[in-house]
Amino acid sequence: MLHNSASLTKLVGELKKLPGIGEKTAVRLAFQLLKSPANVSALAESLLEVRARVRFCSICFGITEDDPCPICEGDRDESVICVVEDFQDLVAVERSNAFRGRYHVLQGALSPLNGITPAQLHIPELMHRLAAGTVHEVVLATNFSMEGEATALYLTKLIKPLGIRVTRLAHGIPLGGDLEYIDTATVQRAVEGRSEL
Amino acid sequence: MLHNSASLTKLVGELKKLPGIGEKTAVRLAFQLLKSPANVSALAESLLEVRARVRFCSICFGITEDDPCPICEGDRDESVICVVEDFQDLVAVERSNAFRGRYHVLQGALSPLNGITPAQLHIPELMHRLAAGTVHEVVLATNFSMEGEATALYLTKLIKPLGIRVTRLAHGIPLGGDLEYIDTATVQRAVEGRSEL
Repeated sequence: MLHNSASLTKLVGELKKLPGIGEKTAVRLAFQLLKSPANVSALAESLLEVRARVRFCSICFGITEDDPCPICEGDRDESVICVVEDFQDLVAVERSNAFRGRYHVLQGALSPLNGITPAQLHIPELMHRLAAGTVHEVVLATNFSMEGEATALYLTKLIKPLGIRVTRLAHGIPLGGDLEYIDTATVQRAVEGRSEL
Repeated sequence: MLHNSASLTKLVGELKKLPGIGEKTAVRLAFQLLKSPANVSALAESLLEVRARVRFCSICFGITEDDPCPICEGDRDESVICVVEDFQDLVAVERSNAFRGRYHVLQGALSPLNGITPAQLHIPELMHRLAAGTVHEVVLATNFSMEGEATALYLTKLIKPLGIRVTRLAHGIPLGGDLEYIDTATVQRAVEGRSEL
């Protein structure tokens, strides 16, 4: 289609590999990039820099440039570990400013149908961390999807026998939520989890 | 936000410069790229290759790797020039397989409010091409937006006095278009431009 330029066709192909980017968007992005050669270089350099510098923390498997990561190295509460599916979830919990413990990134959730078994996640490493005996509570912050719930259940069964407290993020009405438009199951959980004022 | 990695934060910043990509999408793309290091390299290389190879044709100002571009160098009809705003528009006309002449890419449309005057577009170069005397028809394929129409009007006034035929792409109902949902102005033009069967 872009018969005039093989390298441009190749760039469109690479952009199309990104999630949510189809042929049309890729072409639009490629042409936009062409209009600002400085941005092309900056983006390319930035990609190579990320490739060279970013790695996974060998303790929590979060994304970091230094191993261990600043959170694992810092003076955070060692007795609580928050377990999340992905690094993005860790970022969301951090942004809440409500948690001062450490993290463990599973890098996925259990999904037997997609071939994701406990062995594919960083569950053995989590159990190894818990075996040290310093952790008193594990906060399960996997998503509230079928896979996330299954992972939470699996981990609960694995961790509780060790005498460690296992907690889960609260279910309820989101801030600003309008009861009328919230699904029944969520309202049900919110009623069950109601608190004294 | 991504306090763990300066290079990742930088990549998110670069991705955000692309059209239609906000903070959330940029973060999602960056994390997706992290999951496939091979794609990161391929995208970076592809960007650098485009930066190094792609240029504008010195005749028609279309995008090309060889100057003049294959269309200007080829055996296309020299007597008709199709004037488009952007290279993407050239690609759209080429895809239609309805045009066998040459092109001229203005790289924009007149928009006095945004400071785009004739001097900012490749209009002097178009007039220079027409001065050679081989062109008998100029097809104005600028967009049917306010700016595109203004550009077409401006070019018509400039080119007609040279005794060259000036034509404009037809207005009408798009293929598969449902009359009920098409704006009145388009239906009006379609009625005015009706053809004998």
